[in-house]
Amino acid sequence: MTQAASPAYRGIIPPIITPLKDRDTLDVAGLERLVEHMLGGGVHGIFALGTTGEAPSLSYRLRREMVERTCKLVAGRVPVLVGITDTSFVESVELARFSAEQGVKAVVLSAPYYFPVGQPELVEYVEDLVPELPLPVFLYNMPSHTKVTFELDTVRRAMQLPGVVGLKDSSGNMVYYHQLVRELAQRPDWSLLVGPEELLGESVLLGGHGGVCGGANLCPRLYVALYEAAVRNDVHRVMELHAQVMRISCTVYKVGRYGSAFIKSVKCALSVLGICDDFLAEPFHRFREQERERVGAFLTEFGITRDRAWPAAANLVS
Amino acid sequence: MTQAASPAYRGIIPPIITPLKDRDTLDVAGLERLVEHMLGGGVHGIFALGTTGEAPSLSYRLRREMVERTCKLVAGRVPVLVGITDTSFVESVELARFSAEQGVKAVVLSAPYYFPVGQPELVEYVEDLVPELPLPVFLYNMPSHTKVTFELDTVRRAMQLPGVVGLKDSSGNMVYYHQLVRELAQRPDWSLLVGPEELLGESVLLGGHGGVCGGANLCPRLYVALYEAAVRNDVHRVMELHAQVMRISCTVYKVGRYGSAFIKSVKCALSVLGICDDFLAEPFHRFREQERERVGAFLTEFGITRDRAWPAAANLVS
Amino acid sequence: MTQAASPAYRGIIPPIITPLKDRDTLDVAGLERLVEHMLGGGVHGIFALGTTGEAPSLSYRLRREMVERTCKLVAGRVPVLVGITDTSFVESVELARFSAEQGVKAVVLSAPYYFPVGQPELVEYVEDLVPELPLPVFLYNMPSHTKVTFELDTVRRAMQLPGVVGLKDSSGNMVYYHQLVRELAQRPDWSLLVGPEELLGESVLLGGHGGVCGGANLCPRLYVALYEAAVRNDVHRVMELHAQVMRISCTVYKVGRYGSAFIKSVKCALSVLGICDDFLAEPFHRFREQERERVGAFLTEFGITRDRAWPAAANLVS
Amino acid sequence: MTQAASPAYRGIIPPIITPLKDRDTLDVAGLERLVEHMLGGGVHGIFALGTTGEAPSLSYRLRREMVERTCKLVAGRVPVLVGITDTSFVESVELARFSAEQGVKAVVLSAPYYFPVGQPELVEYVEDLVPELPLPVFLYNMPSHTKVTFELDTVRRAMQLPGVVGLKDSSGNMVYYHQLVRELAQRPDWSLLVGPEELLGESVLLGGHGGVCGGANLCPRLYVALYEAAVRNDVHRVMELHAQVMRISCTVYKVGRYGSAFIKSVKCALSVLGICDDFLAEPFHRFREQERERVGAFLTEFGITRDRAWPAAANLVS
Repeated sequence: MTQAASPAYRGIIPPIITPLKDRDTLDVAGLERLVEHMLGGGVHGIFALGTTGEAPSLSYRLRREMVERTCKLVAGRVPVLVGITDTSFVESVELARFSAEQGVKAVVLSAPYYFPVGQPELVEYVEDLVPELPLPVFLYNMPSHTKVTFELDTVRRAMQLPGVVGLKDSSGNMVYYHQLVRELAQRPDWSLLVGPEELLGESVLLGGHGGVCGGANLCPRLYVALYEAAVRNDVHRVMELHAQVMRISCTVYKVGRYGSAFIKSVKCALSVLGICDDFLAEPFHRFREQERERVGAFLTEFGITRDRAWPAAANLVS
Repeated sequence: MTQAASPAYRGIIPPIITPLKDRDTLDVAGLERLVEHMLGGGVHGIFALGTTGEAPSLSYRLRREMVERTCKLVAGRVPVLVGITDTSFVESVELARFSAEQGVKAVVLSAPYYFPVGQPELVEYVEDLVPELPLPVFLYNMPSHTKVTFELDTVRRAMQLPGVVGLKDSSGNMVYYHQLVRELAQRPDWSLLVGPEELLGESVLLGGHGGVCGGANLCPRLYVALYEAAVRNDVHRVMELHAQVMRISCTVYKVGRYGSAFIKSVKCALSVLGICDDFLAEPFHRFREQERERVGAFLTEFGITRDRAWPAAANLVS
Repeated sequence: MTQAASPAYRGIIPPIITPLKDRDTLDVAGLERLVEHMLGGGVHGIFALGTTGEAPSLSYRLRREMVERTCKLVAGRVPVLVGITDTSFVESVELARFSAEQGVKAVVLSAPYYFPVGQPELVEYVEDLVPELPLPVFLYNMPSHTKVTFELDTVRRAMQLPGVVGLKDSSGNMVYYHQLVRELAQRPDWSLLVGPEELLGESVLLGGHGGVCGGANLCPRLYVALYEAAVRNDVHRVMELHAQVMRISCTVYKVGRYGSAFIKSVKCALSVLGICDDFLAEPFHRFREQERERVGAFLTEFGITRDRAWPAAANLVS
Repeated sequence: MTQAASPAYRGIIPPIITPLKDRDTLDVAGLERLVEHMLGGGVHGIFALGTTGEAPSLSYRLRREMVERTCKLVAGRVPVLVGITDTSFVESVELARFSAEQGVKAVVLSAPYYFPVGQPELVEYVEDLVPELPLPVFLYNMPSHTKVTFELDTVRRAMQLPGVVGLKDSSGNMVYYHQLVRELAQRPDWSLLVGPEELLGESVLLGGHGGVCGGANLCPRLYVALYEAAVRNDVHRVMELHAQVMRISCTVYKVGRYGSAFIKSVKCALSVLGICDDFLAEPFHRFREQERERVGAFLTEFGITRDRAWPAAANLVS
């Protein structure tokens, strides 16, 4: 193993939603518009088949199609990462191999999410799986959905593995996050990315390398601008942009109920903007007309459009 | 729909373990011995690809092989049920169709287990999925692994659906179970089966129709005898046999740690008895030699053997 | 320590509600009527200052008044037990001493409920506290409110302490309960009582000694009759009476929402019957008129009255 | 009510530990040294009888003594706040009245922590209690110990109450915290304080008013310095001091296990420094010699002393 001096992955690497025409049909034209929308906003990578991408709800055939088409559309302009989290070890390995063939740069791995595993079992799992994978691996801490946390001792063990290049933390627990920052003094080549976009500002100010912001499907420039302000320690600008992030979070993402509200509202907003279809794979369904109108009204109020450069100066009063 | 006057499924319908030679290879000879062991013990059905069958940990190819071979081996002697619970709607439907072609009699469906769903979302999911399935459906309440409960109102909604024929409750919550018994006055054709074998006696005494007892992989006659004693209200015999169930539960199943202890010990015990291999799919691993010896010592102490009729009178002092 | 040959406490020992005129005033006349109502129904003991008694919501002065008056009213006809669970060790000891002076027979102790304690801390706590108490001690497993379970190893440790005479399990987890039954082979003098009245039948059929049924404030004879049927293994009668328990549980106790629904409806029903006031200490409030009418309608429908012998034969069809 | 234009409480208002000689005896001399140590470090207030103060574990007599003596020792140099959270409404009111007589400036109120309450019940509780209190009220969000969160709608309702002056959030959930910041545009006179000291830097940088840092019992200057750096947007200095906070958090506070580790290590460290006794009220116990030596070694390594100005420049390399 040759350790890199610094993290390979920095910046905004959004978890791209999976545009669907129906439960097993990709919205191919929508995907193309979405990729261009996000790259046009300056994102530093694309993460396909994450939670926001509804990966576990998709057929394996569709997951492969999504990987293949995303890689072709991105065409090397930024790195593509692919989520291979699965309850089945064999399916994780196969998806990683397929991804490598398509030009994916790294895979993202959370805990298997049906059986609740103990930490020693999780350590063994990572140690068994990483050597089978043909690509660098991001660990993905996502206890709200997988029921298991990558505890610090487990992360320390994973730091011994040459194939792991970073960790994405979606726990929302910033005490844990700061503990990770401390641990990463041991692996300066690891990237530490934060999941919840509401925590992007502080996480980058205090030692992180970027965020996997779902909202960057919609407003990629906002998160890129926030990341850049944090990197240059411009606290005043961080506060302005963070207030915009919170404004979206407290309005658009609250149109729905339950854990699905976030994905539904992002897909709905993209549909309102004419970027892609808002079909959701079961167990979810797109918003009905009433919710769609509320989402649309927020987009109008905030001046969020497909074409316009956003955030614009005029939007900075939250 | 023609409603049956009484439940179609009664008795002990064990969740068969999936005998493995390695992570993607079925132990075919072991499966044959296991099926004969269980049928020889008098079980009333076989439930393949449940939690105890490690279904979520297996590749889709292996899941299909397991369904196909189990149906051939059982050869219609008892009904075969198959778990189709999945995070992907499309994969659930496809496995159900494949199962129907193999001669499976019913499918078992829990909540999709990655995204935490609200109850209205769960209702919609069941209402969307059941009509797509070519076989009768058992609902499967398994909140410890799926993170979501089939709440009573949701069960009431499902009672409107002609395709649903029963519910398996693995919550371990007997207050909820008794509420279900009350609700089932509305659907006397539904079968209500209990998951945890430690609750088999009381659940059948107080109105249930049987159990999906994992321990019946190992000692099928014990659970069949307990079920029969409960059906004939023989409380004295229920207590004797229940004490044996608890003796196994408090010893053999406690050799390991974490949620995986149960599956590991059952597979280990079957291996000790020469029935099948004890390989476990990741994220789990078989017991090491030390634990295996402890399991073996318990089997010897309790007189549990492959060939012998068990429970025998001599074993009834716990 | 001289071990008794058999448990000292058997039968129905209801957690008496605390009749209040306002937040710091006991409804003394109501308490007298309630005690006579319960003793007239044949209960085997009275447990004051439990969860159903709203103990943690009362001032310390009022708790002492409740103990003093209850002892005087019961006047030795059945044993009085008092809950001393508290976050403060010193207050627990003082209440136990006061209780002993009033003629209380045993105290009931759960885990201190503010700080989440580890199991070794809970063991130490019990080992520290029991020797300071002038009365025999029941342990009280109540994880829904205290956030900590008396795990089996902790119960085993407590079995070494001469001062402990039993355990009340309100976890609702019958697998755990059956494990306790097994453990109690080591302490045949311990009483094992179950909390949720919906589990009374099966727990006594399968080895328990009785129940701490909140509903016995309202219908003491029902729970006494169910207990007696279970003791004599009369499964048919157990099912009849258990069905009545479930009918009340699924109707009267569901009039309200949240965890407080049970206490509110029991107090409301007692008020409707003219037994005592239905004031609740904060953070709760009595039902409003609409809910009160629904409770009253259920009482009428089920033929539950203050004076009448209940359950009567006519009520046995649920 | 005349609304102040800006929050009355800003800065570091530590939750003072309660120095004990035994379970019901205050370490009076230790309390005096501790108060001087903290005031000497520049703290902006003292919060007595919080979680860190072990309030729920103390007798009511001792709680009153602690309030009385703390007020006398502080002697008006900074405001004293007192926690009145209790399961009993009556006891909360009485402690508030006593506190007012002693010169306390505000009381701190979390949810009653035995019965799990629904949000409408929590709203009613706050609306009932606040008018009974003779002092301004801080709400205290502490779901890890009380089992209930002050959800946003509940906070909005509390914003209608003139007597409430702020909120202390110990949830550790920074997404929630940022939502609170947004809400507080409606009540610019409210103070928003953060509980976990690991989040002090980011919370003040992004709109909060200070912190209730338990570690400020030990190193008051560190937290005061961090607060001041954040107020002046000095991100470089925030990072240096935040790294020191994390160093302590990841070492000293990890000497013990379970939730009690933090209080035990702070009391132990104060004892090692000769400031006060390290006795803990049950259910906890002071560290044994081995843990004490580890705490002492960390203090030496980090140069933390009673007398010395700390943080000193030499300590800024973490």
